[in-house]
Amino acid sequence: MNAITPQALAAICAGDRHAIARTISTVENGDPGADAIARAIAPHLGRAHVIGITGAPGAGKSTLINALLGEFLGRGQRVAVVAVDPSSPITGGAVLGDRVRMGEHGAHDRVFIRSVSARGHPGGLSRATASIVDVLDAARFDTVIVETVGAGQSEVAITGLADTRIVVCPPGLGDDVQAIKAGILEIADIHVVSKCDRSDANRTITDLKTMLAMGISVSIKNNDGKPLWQVPVVGTSAETGEGIRELVATMDRHRDAHRTTELGPARLRRIAEYRTFKTAEDLLRSRFFASTSERVAAMVERISRRELDPFAASDELMSNVAL
Amino acid sequence: MNAITPQALAAICAGDRHAIARTISTVENGDPGADAIARAIAPHLGRAHVIGITGAPGAGKSTLINALLGEFLGRGQRVAVVAVDPSSPITGGAVLGDRVRMGEHGAHDRVFIRSVSARGHPGGLSRATASIVDVLDAARFDTVIVETVGAGQSEVAITGLADTRIVVCPPGLGDDVQAIKAGILEIADIHVVSKCDRSDANRTITDLKTMLAMGISVSIKNNDGKPLWQVPVVGTSAETGEGIRELVATMDRHRDAHRTTELGPARLRRIAEYRTFKTAEDLLRSRFFASTSERVAAMVERISRRELDPFAASDELMSNVAL
Repeated sequence: MNAITPQALAAICAGDRHAIARTISTVENGDPGADAIARAIAPHLGRAHVIGITGAPGAGKSTLINALLGEFLGRGQRVAVVAVDPSSPITGGAVLGDRVRMGEHGAHDRVFIRSVSARGHPGGLSRATASIVDVLDAARFDTVIVETVGAGQSEVAITGLADTRIVVCPPGLGDDVQAIKAGILEIADIHVVSKCDRSDANRTITDLKTMLAMGISVSIKNNDGKPLWQVPVVGTSAETGEGIRELVATMDRHRDAHRTTELGPARLRRIAEYRTFKTAEDLLRSRFFASTSERVAAMVERISRRELDPFAASDELMSNVAL
Repeated sequence: MNAITPQALAAICAGDRHAIARTISTVENGDPGADAIARAIAPHLGRAHVIGITGAPGAGKSTLINALLGEFLGRGQRVAVVAVDPSSPITGGAVLGDRVRMGEHGAHDRVFIRSVSARGHPGGLSRATASIVDVLDAARFDTVIVETVGAGQSEVAITGLADTRIVVCPPGLGDDVQAIKAGILEIADIHVVSKCDRSDANRTITDLKTMLAMGISVSIKNNDGKPLWQVPVVGTSAETGEGIRELVATMDRHRDAHRTTELGPARLRRIAEYRTFKTAEDLLRSRFFASTSERVAAMVERISRRELDPFAASDELMSNVAL
């Protein structure tokens, strides 16, 4: 029962929602059959435009995504959203139903929404997310949006699997020096300033443009030393609809630049490296924790009595590791 | 030259700023002598109240910390701030001077401020941060504030080394379902709603209290099943000064609960586990990357040509690892 049937593969590629949902569950949980699915869908990959959207809680990602869904649906597209929550160790999953959360378009028959939380992925969250994106790609969704919650290192890292990486920030951040330090400026292909109906939005847009002009973003240059992609800043308002069309046009422009310039191969290498390293890193960490947790428990008692130094304890744990 | 002299140790314990700064540089960089320092200061640890403050960029952490500095200074305390930025791989360090950033109290002679960014720590950021906190503890600062930028998994994790963990969020987040999913609700000992002069602050405070009452926070219970610490929500305004005194009183109350209840030993075990595991994890990751980066570079070319599957590639990398 470990092989995927030709019928099941055909159902996925034809966009059968139930087949897609079942297949995602299999790859997400690393169930028997997951490898067979990966092999079967491999020839069908590379068609979807994968868009990563990240930003701090409260930045307005969900409302932005709902507005984007409206725009993509209006073009006749099929769109999938993968909502990734790497942070929550306890609450897990979606607190409200995904469809409710995504607003009016969540229940549309050309929209598919899936949540992934930190728990229950034997091969790690990054691999699970990448596998889900692949199933949706094979299922011929035109656009796959990967949304991550939180603006930290691991959240931003997940956008590494996207073709186009969007960082959303609300007005008022631009004048905060911490915005520069959040480590999310550097990875964006497109910056979005949300809630741009607010009076302080223009200031934030200007500040972001200034920082980008200071050369903070990483760019791939052509032979003349000119960047192949100038990172744009787009103001959007889910309230008024302002900027949504411009944002979609900017995403298209970014995708076209991949087709026609050195950006394309560079993106493929970046995604390949991300997938390889992140998957290995997740496996490494979970195996290490599994193999040491009993010894750590014993060490912790001694450390908390100050009989053992925690740094010496970690060196001792590492002494058994051969890399 | 690897041993710390009795004079140098005495200078640190006497609060000599230059000696402290030099010692921090040694332990932060893992220079020769770092281990000797760790051994020398070990008997002098456990006195400072270590406070971890985290929250999304723009939450108002810096202004809150400046207000707290004013309050602590008014009590005659010596206070240190360690500003940790785990995210930024490129900009690194402080963009503005630390003292400028911390506002009016940054230059006070009983205040000591130090930034730590993601780069240049051979033993990893967590170990470097923990070592710096230890030096400041030995240097007899009454309170050591560890501030982290960003509201992601790794940022929140750093508060694991603190006695009292504070999560700051601005008004308007409470009604956002993502706030629940950010994984930061669960770890707070105290919640702060900043900018509580704003009209939507009360709503956020109420929402947070409701979520906490729903049992989302992790609590240690006494024999009767009653939690030993009810996580409070404190509204503060750096503008009006509202709530700052209440927040400091709440921190004191949390610290006292450690002295008199089972919370104390539980906290010591939590910190010991954090220090051991995080240090080992950082070492593990950096050794793994160093030992595999050449092979990954070769793999990436083949993956981007779709000749190799990234998951198979990561399995191959892992096949050489013995844990």
